[in-house]
Amino acid sequence: MTNAEKALLLHEQWQGKLEIKSKAEVKSREDLALAYTPGVAEPCKLIAKDKELAYKYTIKSNTIAVVSDGSAVLGLGNIGPYAAMPVMEGKAVLFKEFGGVNAVPICLDTQDTEEIIKAVTYLAPGFGGINLEDISAPRCFEIEERLKEKLDIPVFHDDQHGTAIVVLAGIINGLKVVNKKKEDCRVVVNGAGSAGIAITKLLLNYGFKNVTMCDKSGILHKGSDDLNWMQEKMMDVTNPDQMKGTLADALNGADIFVGVSAPGIVTKEMAQKMNSDAIMFAMANPVPEIMPDLAKEAGIRVIGTGRSDFPNQVNNVLVFPGIFKGALEAGAKQITEEMKLAAANAIAGLVPDEELSDVNILPAAFDPRVSDVVSRAVKEHVRN
Amino acid sequence: MTNAEKALLLHEQWQGKLEIKSKAEVKSREDLALAYTPGVAEPCKLIAKDKELAYKYTIKSNTIAVVSDGSAVLGLGNIGPYAAMPVMEGKAVLFKEFGGVNAVPICLDTQDTEEIIKAVTYLAPGFGGINLEDISAPRCFEIEERLKEKLDIPVFHDDQHGTAIVVLAGIINGLKVVNKKKEDCRVVVNGAGSAGIAITKLLLNYGFKNVTMCDKSGILHKGSDDLNWMQEKMMDVTNPDQMKGTLADALNGADIFVGVSAPGIVTKEMAQKMNSDAIMFAMANPVPEIMPDLAKEAGIRVIGTGRSDFPNQVNNVLVFPGIFKGALEAGAKQITEEMKLAAANAIAGLVPDEELSDVNILPAAFDPRVSDVVSRAVKEHVRN
Repeated sequence: MTNAEKALLLHEQWQGKLEIKSKAEVKSREDLALAYTPGVAEPCKLIAKDKELAYKYTIKSNTIAVVSDGSAVLGLGNIGPYAAMPVMEGKAVLFKEFGGVNAVPICLDTQDTEEIIKAVTYLAPGFGGINLEDISAPRCFEIEERLKEKLDIPVFHDDQHGTAIVVLAGIINGLKVVNKKKEDCRVVVNGAGSAGIAITKLLLNYGFKNVTMCDKSGILHKGSDDLNWMQEKMMDVTNPDQMKGTLADALNGADIFVGVSAPGIVTKEMAQKMNSDAIMFAMANPVPEIMPDLAKEAGIRVIGTGRSDFPNQVNNVLVFPGIFKGALEAGAKQITEEMKLAAANAIAGLVPDEELSDVNILPAAFDPRVSDVVSRAVKEHVRN
Repeated sequence: MTNAEKALLLHEQWQGKLEIKSKAEVKSREDLALAYTPGVAEPCKLIAKDKELAYKYTIKSNTIAVVSDGSAVLGLGNIGPYAAMPVMEGKAVLFKEFGGVNAVPICLDTQDTEEIIKAVTYLAPGFGGINLEDISAPRCFEIEERLKEKLDIPVFHDDQHGTAIVVLAGIINGLKVVNKKKEDCRVVVNGAGSAGIAITKLLLNYGFKNVTMCDKSGILHKGSDDLNWMQEKMMDVTNPDQMKGTLADALNGADIFVGVSAPGIVTKEMAQKMNSDAIMFAMANPVPEIMPDLAKEAGIRVIGTGRSDFPNQVNNVLVFPGIFKGALEAGAKQITEEMKLAAANAIAGLVPDEELSDVNILPAAFDPRVSDVVSRAVKEHVRN
């Protein structure tokens, strides 16, 4: 049996990867009178007076919604809300298994920005956070921003920020390995969708001075055709030299490459033109922008991919369970830039300096310390 | 410690009465590759081609949403979505413990009919059914009707139909005890909200010919003031003699009284005017329309209440877990009148004729046979 066949068979056996479990035992009239009527009226009456008490008496304290419209699911594209469910269930599994966070998958039967914002706003009272997932750019930016303004619970688009945080963690350690300073590095981010833009923003917030974005049309600069409103906004803070040209031009002399784009688009020749002691994150999945062995031949020093079968796997699972675990435990109202930077530093900190090497810049996905360390770092930066 | 204090303390300890559990184990890279990427793409691709396969591969097969807007919660009234959560969580606990049905509480932050309909429509793809709960009348009628039209999964407003089904089950057995025929009985339903109207409709569908509704203003008849659109509609099929007057007038010579109204509004004198071998369901909670001992003194033969400390408890928990269990197991697209009548007959059938008596017309809430019997009866009547 192939792995694909095995996955399908397992999904058929599971018939849904999640179940709801009751914490309250209901074996007698007395139990019923405490967990349901008339006893249940007591917390209801208190919450009616002060809705913050929902954190004390309801699942809001430890439950989030994983919300998608199925418009940009994994490598599958716009497959809609029904077909997106197995992925969102899987995400919920990871939230629970890695972070102890209860997550409910909600796949919305609309891809209209306004309707998505309304739907999430309406269903928010019972949840302590919203993890947006697999919503296509640029809608995802507006949906996240507007929901952050409207809601008093954390809203986090994992495709953007989870990816950005783990990339930053890898870069923090990569810089130690190659002994360079962030201020001196020229960074190229290829792919100007949700992940690419979020990575660029976080690198700038972390202190990088020279980040240039590219996409299929080459280097993005002021005056590039067909920029969406978010890319347009990014032109004010990226590409300080207003370079124009191709990805190859951008890579010429660059120190760091971050690819969230397409398989095989970086050739050995392009990689060879990068600065010495270069760092590459080639995260197209399953086939990276350049295969690690080829990048090595081209003289790249540190290479990360999205794959678990190569060193330096960049995996969001290092981030999202701990981020929400920390946010929920602290009753955070939002996830701030400080919390994201703290999470990146915490992840990077799990690899001690003496163990750092070209092939060891990130903790393993299954390192049991990760979500605790991330959640603790996040909690320290909560300011409600 | 009082029971109220105990209930509050327990709710604080639970901090939410539900948790999400993963059925998929994720202890290794291999597990991850099957439950999440890349394996998860297999069921996604199949569902993208045929959304009915969502029942085969996702939680849609055995998970419903319990949806409320917090507008009419228990005896507490319009306490809003945050304060409604402990009740909806409790309902989800009962769905699981009594019927094995996974239920997710969703409390909506809107009380606008159109917005509720939209929100539920949007979140429906991941669920196999919608249980509406504690939504005030007459909005609940329109919300349920419109959602039934729009969605291809069962939509069931338990305050209406759960109550109606268990009342009908009690009446079916009550008639056997008093040896009367439904066609000969005059029925009075007091309370013209969601439960009262649904009870009236189901009794008519079952074959009762003479049902009269009353509310605070007395007997409802064509031309009553302040009827809402649904009550207006009911006037075409109820009160065949176009009686006018008070509840006392209605009860004069009636065979069956069903109260879903207010404590103590039926006096001993009013009860005495009912026909011989009368049946009363006095379901105001916690204080019934008339206390059972007083009704007995007035000569009423069979008396049921909503309370577990008197005989003949009318409890929705006899209905909703089995209804949805059956509907989900059969992949039902809706819950029809036939399914409701079958459920009532199945519940009634659990008390063998030789055990029927004035004080034994309904199975106990904790009778372990109930949800299986109801679900089997429901499944037999599914026609998709």
